[in-house]
Amino acid sequence: MKLYSYFRSSAAYRVRIALNLKGLAADIIPVHLLKDGGQQRQQDYLDINPTALVPTLVDGDFVLGQSMAIVEYLEETHPQPALLPSDVQDRARIRAIAQIIACDIHPLNNLRVLQYLKHTLNIDDAGRDQWYMHWIHLGLTGVEAMLADSPQTGEFCHGDEPGYADLMLVPQVANARRFNCDLSSMPNVVRIDAACNKLDAFIKAAPANQPDSQT
Amino acid sequence: MKLYSYFRSSAAYRVRIALNLKGLAADIIPVHLLKDGGQQRQQDYLDINPTALVPTLVDGDFVLGQSMAIVEYLEETHPQPALLPSDVQDRARIRAIAQIIACDIHPLNNLRVLQYLKHTLNIDDAGRDQWYMHWIHLGLTGVEAMLADSPQTGEFCHGDEPGYADLMLVPQVANARRFNCDLSSMPNVVRIDAACNKLDAFIKAAPANQPDSQT
Repeated sequence: MKLYSYFRSSAAYRVRIALNLKGLAADIIPVHLLKDGGQQRQQDYLDINPTALVPTLVDGDFVLGQSMAIVEYLEETHPQPALLPSDVQDRARIRAIAQIIACDIHPLNNLRVLQYLKHTLNIDDAGRDQWYMHWIHLGLTGVEAMLADSPQTGEFCHGDEPGYADLMLVPQVANARRFNCDLSSMPNVVRIDAACNKLDAFIKAAPANQPDSQT
Repeated sequence: MKLYSYFRSSAAYRVRIALNLKGLAADIIPVHLLKDGGQQRQQDYLDINPTALVPTLVDGDFVLGQSMAIVEYLEETHPQPALLPSDVQDRARIRAIAQIIACDIHPLNNLRVLQYLKHTLNIDDAGRDQWYMHWIHLGLTGVEAMLADSPQTGEFCHGDEPGYADLMLVPQVANARRFNCDLSSMPNVVRIDAACNKLDAFIKAAPANQPDSQT
C-alpha cells in the first residue's frame, strides 16, 4: 500500500496510526501542502485525488481519499486487531466521537481555512488563533462529556485497547497543544491522549517522526 | 424512535431521508436553532446531546448524535433496504463521497460558523456569501469528479438505487441552491439530485415538509 501524506496533516496522522495499530506497512509519499503553492493542488496529485486533500490511500488499483473512509476500509479488509467495538451501540458511540473531531473541529482549523481567513478575509494572527481555539474548545468539550458520561470509557475511548476514536483524538489534541489551547477542563481527553502517546503505533505516526518532517 | 431535528439543518435532513428510505418511523422533536438564543444550547437539550448540535436519535435507551454515525447505526440495526453497497471498495467510495460533504463542505457553512463570521469577525453579508459559495464549489467539484470518474455511478451515486451518498448530497445541494451557487459545471450532481427529489423518501424529508418549517 501507499499513503500520500503530509507530516503535519492531522487527517493523514489518523491513517498513519490506524496502519500502525493494524501492523500494516505502507510507503509514505509526502505531499507538501505549503511548497510549490501547495503540492496537493498540482495536476499529478489532482489526478489521484480531485479534492486536493491528503491523505490518499492506494491499495493495488484502488485509490481512496477521506481519512475516516480509509480507516473503515482498513477495518473491513484487515479486521484484526479491530479498531471498532463489536457491539452495534458501542460502535455507534465511537463513530460519533470520531465525527465530532472530523466534522465539528478539524474542518474549521484546516490549513486551507486558516489561509482563507488570512488572505481573503484579512483576519490577523490573533483573530485566527481565537478562531482556532474556539472550535477546538467547543468540540473537545463535547468529546470530554461523551467520555465522562459513558461506562464504556476505559484507559482508552473504548475500554482498555486503543482504537478508532483514539486515533482521531490524538492528532486533534496535538493540534490543540500547538495552539496552546487550555485543556484543563478535559481530564479524560488529556488522560487518554497521554496513554496513547506511550504506544509505538502512535509514536511512529507522529508528525515529528515522518520522513517529510524536516522539509 | 425519536429524532431531535431542525427543519433547515442539513445534518438532520440526511437522517430524515435515511429513516424514510428504510421505512422507519421516528417522532420528530423540533429543536429551533435560532429561537430562545438557540434551543440546542439550552440545558434540557445539552443533557441529551452535549455538543449542542442536531440531529440526535433516540432509540429506546440509546442516544446518538452525529448524522453519519446515525446512518451507519440504522444500516446495522435495520440492514434492509441497504444504504451502503455490499462490495468493500464500493462501500469505501460511497463513504468517501459522503465525507467530502460532511467534512469538507458542511462544517464550514454551518449556522454557528456563519454566526461567528458575522458577530465575532464582523464579516459582511457579501463576504459571508462568498465564503459559503467558495467551500461548496470546491467540495462539490470534488464530488462531481468522483461521480464522473467511476463506472459505479448510475442513476444515483452508486448504481440505480438511492443510498448513503445520495442522502448526503441532496441536503448539500439544497443549501447550494439557497445561496445561488453555480452548479453548471456539475452535471452528475445536478442529475442525481433531480432523480432523488422525485422520490417520496426525499420529498417527505425536505425542510419545507417538516412540522417546524412554519415556526
